Amino acid sequence: MFPAGKANFKDRYDTKIVDWIKPWDGKEGVKIGLIGLPLSKSSISHSGAFLAPKMIRELFANYSTYVEDERINLNDLEVKDIGDVQMHPTDIIGSHQRIEDSLSLLYEHQPKMQPIIIGGDHSVTAPSVKAFKKKIGGEIGIIQFDAHHDIRNLEDGGPTNGTPFRTLIESGTINPKNLVQIGIRNYANAEHYREEAEGLGITVYPMKEVRTRPIKEIIEEAIKIASNGTEAIYVSLDIDVLDQAFAPGAVAIGPGGMDTFTLFDAVELLAQEKKVKGFDLVCIDPMQDFRNMTSRVGVQLILQFLRGKYRFKNGNNTNKL
Amino acid sequence: MFPAGKANFKDRYDTKIVDWIKPWDGKEGVKIGLIGLPLSKSSISHSGAFLAPKMIRELFANYSTYVEDERINLNDLEVKDIGDVQMHPTDIIGSHQRIEDSLSLLYEHQPKMQPIIIGGDHSVTAPSVKAFKKKIGGEIGIIQFDAHHDIRNLEDGGPTNGTPFRTLIESGTINPKNLVQIGIRNYANAEHYREEAEGLGITVYPMKEVRTRPIKEIIEEAIKIASNGTEAIYVSLDIDVLDQAFAPGAVAIGPGGMDTFTLFDAVELLAQEKKVKGFDLVCIDPMQDFRNMTSRVGVQLILQFLRGKYRFKNGNNTNKL
Amino acid sequence: MFPAGKANFKDRYDTKIVDWIKPWDGKEGVKIGLIGLPLSKSSISHSGAFLAPKMIRELFANYSTYVEDERINLNDLEVKDIGDVQMHPTDIIGSHQRIEDSLSLLYEHQPKMQPIIIGGDHSVTAPSVKAFKKKIGGEIGIIQFDAHHDIRNLEDGGPTNGTPFRTLIESGTINPKNLVQIGIRNYANAEHYREEAEGLGITVYPMKEVRTRPIKEIIEEAIKIASNGTEAIYVSLDIDVLDQAFAPGAVAIGPGGMDTFTLFDAVELLAQEKKVKGFDLVCIDPMQDFRNMTSRVGVQLILQFLRGKYRFKNGNNTNKL
Amino acid sequence: MFPAGKANFKDRYDTKIVDWIKPWDGKEGVKIGLIGLPLSKSSISHSGAFLAPKMIRELFANYSTYVEDERINLNDLEVKDIGDVQMHPTDIIGSHQRIEDSLSLLYEHQPKMQPIIIGGDHSVTAPSVKAFKKKIGGEIGIIQFDAHHDIRNLEDGGPTNGTPFRTLIESGTINPKNLVQIGIRNYANAEHYREEAEGLGITVYPMKEVRTRPIKEIIEEAIKIASNGTEAIYVSLDIDVLDQAFAPGAVAIGPGGMDTFTLFDAVELLAQEKKVKGFDLVCIDPMQDFRNMTSRVGVQLILQFLRGKYRFKNGNNTNKL
Amino acid sequence: MFPAGKANFKDRYDTKIVDWIKPWDGKEGVKIGLIGLPLSKSSISHSGAFLAPKMIRELFANYSTYVEDERINLNDLEVKDIGDVQMHPTDIIGSHQRIEDSLSLLYEHQPKMQPIIIGGDHSVTAPSVKAFKKKIGGEIGIIQFDAHHDIRNLEDGGPTNGTPFRTLIESGTINPKNLVQIGIRNYANAEHYREEAEGLGITVYPMKEVRTRPIKEIIEEAIKIASNGTEAIYVSLDIDVLDQAFAPGAVAIGPGGMDTFTLFDAVELLAQEKKVKGFDLVCIDPMQDFRNMTSRVGVQLILQFLRGKYRFKNGNNTNKL
Amino acid sequence: MFPAGKANFKDRYDTKIVDWIKPWDGKEGVKIGLIGLPLSKSSISHSGAFLAPKMIRELFANYSTYVEDERINLNDLEVKDIGDVQMHPTDIIGSHQRIEDSLSLLYEHQPKMQPIIIGGDHSVTAPSVKAFKKKIGGEIGIIQFDAHHDIRNLEDGGPTNGTPFRTLIESGTINPKNLVQIGIRNYANAEHYREEAEGLGITVYPMKEVRTRPIKEIIEEAIKIASNGTEAIYVSLDIDVLDQAFAPGAVAIGPGGMDTFTLFDAVELLAQEKKVKGFDLVCIDPMQDFRNMTSRVGVQLILQFLRGKYRFKNGNNTNKL
Ligand SMILES: [Ca+2]
Ligand SMILES: [Ca+2]
Ligand SMILES: [Ca+2]
Ligand SMILES: [Ca+2]
Ligand SMILES: [Ca+2]
Ligand SMILES: [Ca+2]
Ligand SMILES: [Ca+2]
Ligand SMILES: [Ca+2]
Ligand SMILES: [Ca+2]
Ligand SMILES: [Ca+2]
Ligand SMILES: [Ca+2]
Ligand SMILES: [Ca+2]
Repeated sequence: MFPAGKANFKDRYDTKIVDWIKPWDGKEGVKIGLIGLPLSKSSISHSGAFLAPKMIRELFANYSTYVEDERINLNDLEVKDIGDVQMHPTDIIGSHQRIEDSLSLLYEHQPKMQPIIIGGDHSVTAPSVKAFKKKIGGEIGIIQFDAHHDIRNLEDGGPTNGTPFRTLIESGTINPKNLVQIGIRNYANAEHYREEAEGLGITVYPMKEVRTRPIKEIIEEAIKIASNGTEAIYVSLDIDVLDQAFAPGAVAIGPGGMDTFTLFDAVELLAQEKKVKGFDLVCIDPMQDFRNMTSRVGVQLILQFLRGKYRFKNGNNTNKL
Repeated sequence: MFPAGKANFKDRYDTKIVDWIKPWDGKEGVKIGLIGLPLSKSSISHSGAFLAPKMIRELFANYSTYVEDERINLNDLEVKDIGDVQMHPTDIIGSHQRIEDSLSLLYEHQPKMQPIIIGGDHSVTAPSVKAFKKKIGGEIGIIQFDAHHDIRNLEDGGPTNGTPFRTLIESGTINPKNLVQIGIRNYANAEHYREEAEGLGITVYPMKEVRTRPIKEIIEEAIKIASNGTEAIYVSLDIDVLDQAFAPGAVAIGPGGMDTFTLFDAVELLAQEKKVKGFDLVCIDPMQDFRNMTSRVGVQLILQFLRGKYRFKNGNNTNKL
Repeated sequence: MFPAGKANFKDRYDTKIVDWIKPWDGKEGVKIGLIGLPLSKSSISHSGAFLAPKMIRELFANYSTYVEDERINLNDLEVKDIGDVQMHPTDIIGSHQRIEDSLSLLYEHQPKMQPIIIGGDHSVTAPSVKAFKKKIGGEIGIIQFDAHHDIRNLEDGGPTNGTPFRTLIESGTINPKNLVQIGIRNYANAEHYREEAEGLGITVYPMKEVRTRPIKEIIEEAIKIASNGTEAIYVSLDIDVLDQAFAPGAVAIGPGGMDTFTLFDAVELLAQEKKVKGFDLVCIDPMQDFRNMTSRVGVQLILQFLRGKYRFKNGNNTNKL
Repeated sequence: MFPAGKANFKDRYDTKIVDWIKPWDGKEGVKIGLIGLPLSKSSISHSGAFLAPKMIRELFANYSTYVEDERINLNDLEVKDIGDVQMHPTDIIGSHQRIEDSLSLLYEHQPKMQPIIIGGDHSVTAPSVKAFKKKIGGEIGIIQFDAHHDIRNLEDGGPTNGTPFRTLIESGTINPKNLVQIGIRNYANAEHYREEAEGLGITVYPMKEVRTRPIKEIIEEAIKIASNGTEAIYVSLDIDVLDQAFAPGAVAIGPGGMDTFTLFDAVELLAQEKKVKGFDLVCIDPMQDFRNMTSRVGVQLILQFLRGKYRFKNGNNTNKL
Repeated sequence: MFPAGKANFKDRYDTKIVDWIKPWDGKEGVKIGLIGLPLSKSSISHSGAFLAPKMIRELFANYSTYVEDERINLNDLEVKDIGDVQMHPTDIIGSHQRIEDSLSLLYEHQPKMQPIIIGGDHSVTAPSVKAFKKKIGGEIGIIQFDAHHDIRNLEDGGPTNGTPFRTLIESGTINPKNLVQIGIRNYANAEHYREEAEGLGITVYPMKEVRTRPIKEIIEEAIKIASNGTEAIYVSLDIDVLDQAFAPGAVAIGPGGMDTFTLFDAVELLAQEKKVKGFDLVCIDPMQDFRNMTSRVGVQLILQFLRGKYRFKNGNNTNKL
Repeated sequence: MFPAGKANFKDRYDTKIVDWIKPWDGKEGVKIGLIGLPLSKSSISHSGAFLAPKMIRELFANYSTYVEDERINLNDLEVKDIGDVQMHPTDIIGSHQRIEDSLSLLYEHQPKMQPIIIGGDHSVTAPSVKAFKKKIGGEIGIIQFDAHHDIRNLEDGGPTNGTPFRTLIESGTINPKNLVQIGIRNYANAEHYREEAEGLGITVYPMKEVRTRPIKEIIEEAIKIASNGTEAIYVSLDIDVLDQAFAPGAVAIGPGGMDTFTLFDAVELLAQEKKVKGFDLVCIDPMQDFRNMTSRVGVQLILQFLRGKYRFKNGNNTNKL
């Protein structure tokens, strides 16, 4: 009769994300699992990205499960909220280890689960992909959306949000020839790392290419490269790939980035690819945002990924651009 | 010699909106009348949209009457500021009734006046269109720009910003076959209402269609549908049809919406259509905006409507896109 | 292992309010009950006070149950979170009725419960006190902290945040001779109402008296007046009694008000009085606050009330100022 | 029937400042006149103080004319809003001259008018006092509330907000022996100027004295000093005399200043002194404020001045502290 | 060992702008010189644009010298930070004179230096171009990006940010036939000035043309017009040519402007033209910005100019759009 | 002639802090040294306190060296800015070690230097005091201003801002009988730790005592306790000891704390004590502040400390409260 904190208004016909994606009971089998990695002390610059999992979950109360464009209802998909991996206040390296260990344990118990990871900063991608690879049990490719290469040397500051792909390459977790970087931006990276990227065989799509070619073409090429000799593809999306006008609460903001429509299409296309079995979304900082705009984009990116999965599952992945 | 609050600087050659659109004297015949409906307690979520008429009028001091694109000067048109309908602090249903009664009375005295309505939230459209229909004395069509269908059931919360078109259909004010909804957004509506919309014969243009087809085509189709068997068309524009990057002060914000250029073109095109005789602009919340950006968009939407009216009047409505 | 949204850090020795005041199970007997009344559409000016119950509950995660001053631990008291009364989106009068009905029903089932009410705006006090009086079954007095008299006429706008004490007097719920108003501020009220207050026999402590006399004296006098011929006292606290420097998120802000220390003392003193059996806290607007400062004050006012109750219960109400 | 921009709610018994202080018709005799001097390009640091007259007038709609403390109604006093002196966009020296000329002309036509000046920055005090002296036709004293001496040399930057009292002394407009500076703050002034102040015979009350002695004593001393051999006293109040907690929108903010209560008392006391015949209020910056807090303080300072005038006029100036 | 204020983290391979563009030693020969003109008291509306040189220099610490698109490293170019011209606090006309004199003196000593000027408001362009013309010793053309014509009459307010091109034309510094205005916006200019512009022979590209034609075409035409009979072209960029979504910290904001990509291309194209030998960037207001977004755009506009210069120097100016 | 970033205005008689406290040359003997410890990843809650050293140094440009109250000029004291200890991006424990090692090395070379430390969060106090103790070569006492005990257990999260005094006690660096905690606040600490504090012999002054007794008395008692058997006293000041109205940018804000005047007096009194030879100031978060208010308080706290040192040195430490 007097439930604490109940919403003020409810339309009987409305299904919100929060009514659909429920907390995991810790036992049931999960097909798609949402996992929060609230770590951002690992960031080079001041980052409140550890707050993104909390904020994105709160916004689930506002979003519907229905896609007007193709008239599909995502609530057909089984998705569970696994919860957060708990971080340590002062041991950043320890937190990275916890991520790898917790995810590995989870994947062991839920071998069919496809993860959707909400960071945290980009440093979480290294332990996340390590666990993901164990789960897949074979080679994996990565398609990264980012303004930055994120292959900084590890000597100058340890494993930060600037180093995840360096870590993954040096540890042999991935073959750089299966790494595709989309949206790399001018004036945001050192020449040295672009040359290293080239030397390593990483494929780079700088922003001019992203805005002058159809995104569908780029995604098709990217899938080809990331699939080559691999069992699965992991998509890693740093929100700063977006222009500051569209993601004012990215940790690192600037002009000259992608717009949301193109990124929404890209994520939906990728999710329709069978091999794409993991997704992370990082570097949204709710502390520096305006009216949670960037977390709202984050919610829709997750929904675009699920929309793609829905279309894949239902054989609906017709040409849509 | 010492006028209170006079502006600090005045260029002798400048004509601002405020110098052109003057308060109505309550008697003179009016061709185009601006009317404020400062009601937003009727909103489902917290809304300061009742402040929009005040803010938009204040911004009239900053905008010129001159259109650089076609080199026309809008101050040729006769437009008057009718003022606000006064709302009741605690009787929302009563305020809706006041809107209908006040507008009906006004239209009776000013049968040639075409109204430009500044909300308030979208709930004001129901009484506004009821009065408009009496004025027209025949069937009317509606072209609605909105992220949402706004045909929620009336049982769960009464006449809110989520229900105006439900009210208008159920009261027989409009035929849903003459209702066109442009810009309906993913993850923002319940499946149930899209199905009801289809069942009722409402025409829906979801966002993917809006961004992948020329707006001119869509507007032409919309005019055809809304004109079919009607005497007049009323355009109802919810600012949340825009992407959050372009309207950060909409009551409900999110990514994936229209850009301002396309919407400016759409409004200008519509106003050039003879049957378009009423216009409302709702859900701008000056309390949550950044530097009044969204009210600035609101001012230009009104000016685009007047620009279309000018071109219609002067036979200047050549192909412009 | 992966609880959704679990806090990042937990000190094993820490007891937070959230660990102590748990949601009511709907059946168990309750001694002190926290009730949210999220209604603020009834405000004359734009108010987000309906958000205060949610925000104050969220802040419960940050506050400890321990009082350093007297070294007492409030978690000895039994307090339950009853939840919110659900409001109607468009029927304000109906929402007031719901408050009265819901509280009456609750008090019937929980006759020993003392309520701590979190508004909403001050309009909620009228139905809340009506239900409270039924519960007490005898006359009641009111001690009100407020910058304003809140006895506006009901004709000009219905039952708003400006009228609760008018409603209570006219309905015969209270005798104005048992109404004490503390903190009434200059330039904030009409002369007419001060004269009416005097005519009715309301006792008024304007701010100059509040800041030049010891608060203990004023509280003692107030208790005497409110107790005279009554069975119980209800304390109604409008946060705008505080100076804007201390409550920047009050709905109505201004200089010349109380400081937090004095108000904290006043509330603690009142709660030590046996007859004080009800408390409400209204007009905190989380939408206009800076870093939730005013909601933080709200949390501590509730805790000061409970501290007083603790001291009363434990015979610890020695002279403390 | 449809007045443009009319307020949404009006209590029939309420008298707001805006209902009382009306624009001057340019002819009628004026006893107390409000004059805006919207100039702040003359500030050393970036200042939006030119917006203060506009903001303070807007806030007049929210404040009542009634003083709860002594139960007096200020609307008994005759006060008119004279308007603003228009400033030049690029000629700062010219704007100063306009201030002096316009005020002189005004005082000539209204010899009985006592001015309440709203700046603008402190530079306006120099031309304002020059005109005031002509009006008085004899020597004048000045009581200045300020964190700063404002006697900087004129060579380094011309007549800025840092120099008004230097200008007045060097031009012979005032005798420094009749200048009293109250609230001068640590770490905010150069040693050189304090020594100069002493050499010139200026009386200085630094903040420690202001907070450790009763303000009534200081005001009485100040009146004695400023009256000595003069015909009239002009009170010049720089809002930065207040602590940043109480005036967050001062141009120059910092801790260690006065609180609002003490300043309110000081202004009310001064206004009760017969010789006090002019008042200015400067350096409120609405662009950098939080919720117009500092302009709200500004409104109340003006009202406190009028309250003192009321009490003086009605022989009500009994000991009140 | 303990350097004051040293950055917390440094990647050994990173070259930031701040590591490349060093303060000028006052003697060495300079090819490209960065000069700050921190004057904005000359603005018609309140402007903090004087802070832009400081803010842009601070952001140099965050931007790399590397262009991902063409894989070029700008640090090959020799660029020096000349510093700021010091402004006078109260003498605006005097400050304009200082700009002209200081730049003239500088150009005399550094005849080969090409200036990149950071305003300040647009008024600085008049003295800057006067000095530039002396340096060139022949006729010059101007390509202006702006929402406004900036040819207001000088009688109503002196030399403001609304008058620079009026001043340059009337003083004979430029021939209006060599002046090209790109991005002129609807509702932002008086009809009178558009007609004057036409009468004078100024070429105007209103926004509709800018968004419906390829920018490369417009730039080519603009170069042709500005080159006709001139020795050099000066590019003057008012940030308000951008839409408010992309430059929320422009002094004058509004919808309907350019996007950053198009403007970045335009500036890069212009810098590849041999005759383009001067560039200014004005009207960025860091006080009204969100997260320094607009200053970030400013930094990239400077880098795009240098990128064009690099390509010109290295014969790399192939068709790039 | 064109110095980069030079201030726009300079009064020839003004001495600012920045003109007095110059960067250390790394060799000269230093009496009082300012040291930044920009570490706040060690905070339990999100903290931008690492930015405080930078912000406080920037504000040095705005503050004068002159004390109006006693008319003394602090620039007589020799103070140097030693710079910052560089922190590691991902190794928090390592950063603590660096602090201890760097300070130890510094004190070895500068045995006569008294440090003024600017945090960073409170975790820096542990390594700072360890180095300080080595420097003193005997027992030391600590006087801590704080809302919190900061003796949390180290098991639950390692060495955070909640643990410095636990670390210092457990490592034997200090004897808890020489630790005095002033300003401990209600509802902000666990009962467990207050009991532990008592068991250990820590002296606690909760807020009620701080606001009801003269601060001079408390400081005299505190000095006695901290001096008992020690060679030196280290003052550690957590800005959250202040009420949120006075320090809105503390990491942890809340009502019921100290006011700035009392704290300024306390710090000045302490610095006049011969044994007080070290001072740190922590937990100012410039990212969450309003107009840098809290950093401004920080600057004045440092100046109050230096004012006390000046008075001590000059035998001027007469009774001043
Ligand atoms: Ca990135
Ligand atoms: Ca990244
Ligand atoms: Ca909508
Ligand atoms: Ca709508
Ligand atoms: Ca109130
Ligand atoms: Ca009230
Ligand atoms: Ca001052
Ligand atoms: Ca001053
Ligand atoms: Ca412009
Ligand atoms: Ca311009
Ligand atoms: Ca603390
Ligand atoms: Ca602490």
